[in-house]
Amino acid sequence: MTEHSSSLPVSSAPDYLSAPAHNLKGLTIDCLDKGFVRLVDYMGDDASIVQAARVSYGDGTKKLNEDRGLIRYLLRHLHTTPFEMVEFKFHIKLPIFIARQWIRHRTANVNEYSGRYSVMKDEFYVPELSQIRPQSNINKQGRSDTALDPIVAQEIVDQFSASQQQMYQEYEGYLAQDLAREMARINLPLSMYTEWYWKIDLHNLFHFLRLRMDSHAQYEIRVYGEAIANIIKQIVPVAYEAFEDYILHSIKFSRMEYQAIQRMLKEQRSLSDSELTELGMGKREITEFHAKF
Amino acid sequence: MTEHSSSLPVSSAPDYLSAPAHNLKGLTIDCLDKGFVRLVDYMGDDASIVQAARVSYGDGTKKLNEDRGLIRYLLRHLHTTPFEMVEFKFHIKLPIFIARQWIRHRTANVNEYSGRYSVMKDEFYVPELSQIRPQSNINKQGRSDTALDPIVAQEIVDQFSASQQQMYQEYEGYLAQDLAREMARINLPLSMYTEWYWKIDLHNLFHFLRLRMDSHAQYEIRVYGEAIANIIKQIVPVAYEAFEDYILHSIKFSRMEYQAIQRMLKEQRSLSDSELTELGMGKREITEFHAKF
Amino acid sequence: MTEHSSSLPVSSAPDYLSAPAHNLKGLTIDCLDKGFVRLVDYMGDDASIVQAARVSYGDGTKKLNEDRGLIRYLLRHLHTTPFEMVEFKFHIKLPIFIARQWIRHRTANVNEYSGRYSVMKDEFYVPELSQIRPQSNINKQGRSDTALDPIVAQEIVDQFSASQQQMYQEYEGYLAQDLAREMARINLPLSMYTEWYWKIDLHNLFHFLRLRMDSHAQYEIRVYGEAIANIIKQIVPVAYEAFEDYILHSIKFSRMEYQAIQRMLKEQRSLSDSELTELGMGKREITEFHAKF
Amino acid sequence: MTEHSSSLPVSSAPDYLSAPAHNLKGLTIDCLDKGFVRLVDYMGDDASIVQAARVSYGDGTKKLNEDRGLIRYLLRHLHTTPFEMVEFKFHIKLPIFIARQWIRHRTANVNEYSGRYSVMKDEFYVPELSQIRPQSNINKQGRSDTALDPIVAQEIVDQFSASQQQMYQEYEGYLAQDLAREMARINLPLSMYTEWYWKIDLHNLFHFLRLRMDSHAQYEIRVYGEAIANIIKQIVPVAYEAFEDYILHSIKFSRMEYQAIQRMLKEQRSLSDSELTELGMGKREITEFHAKF
Repeated sequence: MTEHSSSLPVSSAPDYLSAPAHNLKGLTIDCLDKGFVRLVDYMGDDASIVQAARVSYGDGTKKLNEDRGLIRYLLRHLHTTPFEMVEFKFHIKLPIFIARQWIRHRTANVNEYSGRYSVMKDEFYVPELSQIRPQSNINKQGRSDTALDPIVAQEIVDQFSASQQQMYQEYEGYLAQDLAREMARINLPLSMYTEWYWKIDLHNLFHFLRLRMDSHAQYEIRVYGEAIANIIKQIVPVAYEAFEDYILHSIKFSRMEYQAIQRMLKEQRSLSDSELTELGMGKREITEFHAKF
Repeated sequence: MTEHSSSLPVSSAPDYLSAPAHNLKGLTIDCLDKGFVRLVDYMGDDASIVQAARVSYGDGTKKLNEDRGLIRYLLRHLHTTPFEMVEFKFHIKLPIFIARQWIRHRTANVNEYSGRYSVMKDEFYVPELSQIRPQSNINKQGRSDTALDPIVAQEIVDQFSASQQQMYQEYEGYLAQDLAREMARINLPLSMYTEWYWKIDLHNLFHFLRLRMDSHAQYEIRVYGEAIANIIKQIVPVAYEAFEDYILHSIKFSRMEYQAIQRMLKEQRSLSDSELTELGMGKREITEFHAKF
Repeated sequence: MTEHSSSLPVSSAPDYLSAPAHNLKGLTIDCLDKGFVRLVDYMGDDASIVQAARVSYGDGTKKLNEDRGLIRYLLRHLHTTPFEMVEFKFHIKLPIFIARQWIRHRTANVNEYSGRYSVMKDEFYVPELSQIRPQSNINKQGRSDTALDPIVAQEIVDQFSASQQQMYQEYEGYLAQDLAREMARINLPLSMYTEWYWKIDLHNLFHFLRLRMDSHAQYEIRVYGEAIANIIKQIVPVAYEAFEDYILHSIKFSRMEYQAIQRMLKEQRSLSDSELTELGMGKREITEFHAKF
Repeated sequence: MTEHSSSLPVSSAPDYLSAPAHNLKGLTIDCLDKGFVRLVDYMGDDASIVQAARVSYGDGTKKLNEDRGLIRYLLRHLHTTPFEMVEFKFHIKLPIFIARQWIRHRTANVNEYSGRYSVMKDEFYVPELSQIRPQSNINKQGRSDTALDPIVAQEIVDQFSASQQQMYQEYEGYLAQDLAREMARINLPLSMYTEWYWKIDLHNLFHFLRLRMDSHAQYEIRVYGEAIANIIKQIVPVAYEAFEDYILHSIKFSRMEYQAIQRMLKEQRSLSDSELTELGMGKREITEFHAKF
């Protein structure tokens, strides 16, 4: 084994896909009333995606594709491993009920503030009045677009806040009685803020963003999704644009929907619901199909 | 802690989505000239998917969805975790060059025959003449649909076979000279058969099948993909049908393609290539778009 | 591709390592005041471990190892992949603060009850008086072995309970005002019970048990760890015994500790703290070393 | 959402645990006859581990631990998540039979040179004479420490080399006949070099190194393990030292071995094999136990 500094031209990264001139470490975006997303560190940029892909394709494709085209081709055709070669590390402060949704993404690394080791801080999420909304009639898991009566909404927000303070005072009381921290915290509410370091590669981050920037995601996690998107699009602008074009704003049609569209384009007319039913769509799918146009 | 046999009605599985009457363990499908896929064991069926989903949704949706509809709804809307609750274990015999593609699927469990511990067997993949095809002109990574000249093809197959035998005899010679197995095997060709146990959940298996049943996948791995599909559709017929409708035969349109289709349906006419270019599609994307209709 | 029922003798599993005569599905163990672990389904047993290992080793080791010995050898020497071939699925009811620790184990499949879809149930963890203990002086993250004053402890438990009821009433009030479920639940306390389906393979379950049955784990999760252990030892008795011998009750010595023990055994005497310091141990490590004997 | 550059003092990294003064990107170590490990990029250093751990522990432990001590404490007590916060990306050239062992580590990202897209290069591993050794008598999967007769060894090496050239010429012949690349390569030997980008975090890299620097690992992969170790110890010197002390050169004793040592230290004498048997050790375990001293 001999050690030397490499001057190999193998898979060198092109200059014009370079990282932004200024270092973005430390860039922070505030989220909700007391949370934030802070970029702690990152490794790679658009050029790193190209660099990794070139290893797979060897000399074979160098001439055919320019780099932006290559990145877009890769994402369009599900060649996702080169996107795993870019890594981001964030410091995030977020309410626990959001942390519980977030942590379901398993292909990431996490260090969370521990309520067993340390005293939890007196910080809770108090929603804006505009987010105090009724249950959605069409979305079993979401809130409506309309608002509750502003007086009722204010009462609810006030009660949120009052109960948060009460629970925190009880927590402090338990600690003052020397109850172990791991027990004292068990009645703290899910609206309490926690914080963590979160590290993830670009491919898995795109998957996270697709799900968490979706209109069906809970508003509070969408705020974080958008903050992260705003940060990374400065680091991987070409890949992010491809993500928007081929994933985020793409649309998937089922086998039956695909058949329907082909017929509609060929026959230059709409299909009736009974024709869609004949193609194998259920009632709910027909509604979903119409909603796509 | 008290231990008791549960009679909880919690999340009980409906009878009519039950597993096939006969146990399918041991079901084997031959693949290529000497390989196979054998179902060693499995856990769960369509009913297990419903059962797991019901835990998430509680009583909330029980009335709204009947079970087939629920399974199809889950898959259509990317609620994939209930599909992780079904597990399959296969015994697979396959050429090493296919094993190298296969192993890239990381969310599976594998025990492979070891050439360090054991003597490799004298079994190699010899392609059928019909698979001896030229490099594709349109697919950088694939073979053409046309065949090579049958005489040339026969020569190639004969040479494959002769060299396999030669390399195996050299291998046996090395072993006879007491060379360590881990060294003796290093010149064996990638066409040699290996075997492994492979365990995977249904969600990740669908991902595998989507990629490996695709027309861009190498023919030899597609054969295995189809064998696996033929096995599991007997165990999870409803989920498999949903997989075909919403994943395998679904189609994804990019943001730009979606805009194009919306315009085409509205204006009841085709769009010219320059109109597609204006929407932001590249040359290659326009070709891909046309190929979808 | 031809399909046939296999009668291959390949890697057949030995009879005497067979699963328990009676099916254990549905076996339930109560945990804490309102929780439980219920075995929903499982795939494989001790024989499955041997069967998978035999694929790796081929005929090579068949004569040398009888099966119990093989399982123990595999675990002792970190050949962990055959243990991944056994799978368990549990239905678990547990407090949210425990669920938050639990979910950090990423190599498992989870379907959790959703407070966005469904109304949370009025069930909270109220600790037994004996668990109302002061902060540990030696373990920054744990509770002491001694109890708090019983009167104080009773007061704390009463306050836990009262606040839980208050928060639940507020929750019901929010729902009555038609506040969206996903918002109404944000002030519910971490002591609330949730439930989920949890599926994991034996190798990763051993890792879970090693960490969660450890004396440094929070008492409440240890209760669940022990319940799971009590269930699986009925299904994989040989592997579980090996787990106890080689993992759970094994002990690891650092490089320096190993040197110290070798000297102590050779010189048949103890080493002084300054001798241990010379070997490179820090103060804390010396304390830890003494605690091991 | 407001965006601003953060000046938060939260979890700031200490200066004296800083990265090496010079950037190590591009550092390359040659491996075997034609392979190499090249450091393409990395994110983080010893200070990053401390930084992530501080998020978990909050202010709680700041005074008790200085940073080197904290890193060592974390590793000693299996608090492994902070080590996941450091990431490395390597470009590696290695023989395929080693790549097949390597790829079994699933928690890493890989882009490999593709023989479907590109023509494989005429580069094969030819072992040094000193590695042409007989099968080990004690290690079913390894080679002996002694050498084969040098004349025999030379013959074997010559035959390796000749057959590699022959197989490559056949490969070139197939390509000249326009056989698709994905087919032409199937008879290439496992000794052929491939290359890939490989990205992994420090925790999982330690796991890789523990297994692949072990004396039971095949010599050829150990060479790569040592090359990687030599690179990363320049980036995370404190963590690497802790890895050596608490993982690589640590030793694990089973429950029975632990009992034996306790007795031996207490009674200041050795135990006989029959006493070890009484403690529950098998024959093989007794041999392994003696080998530890």
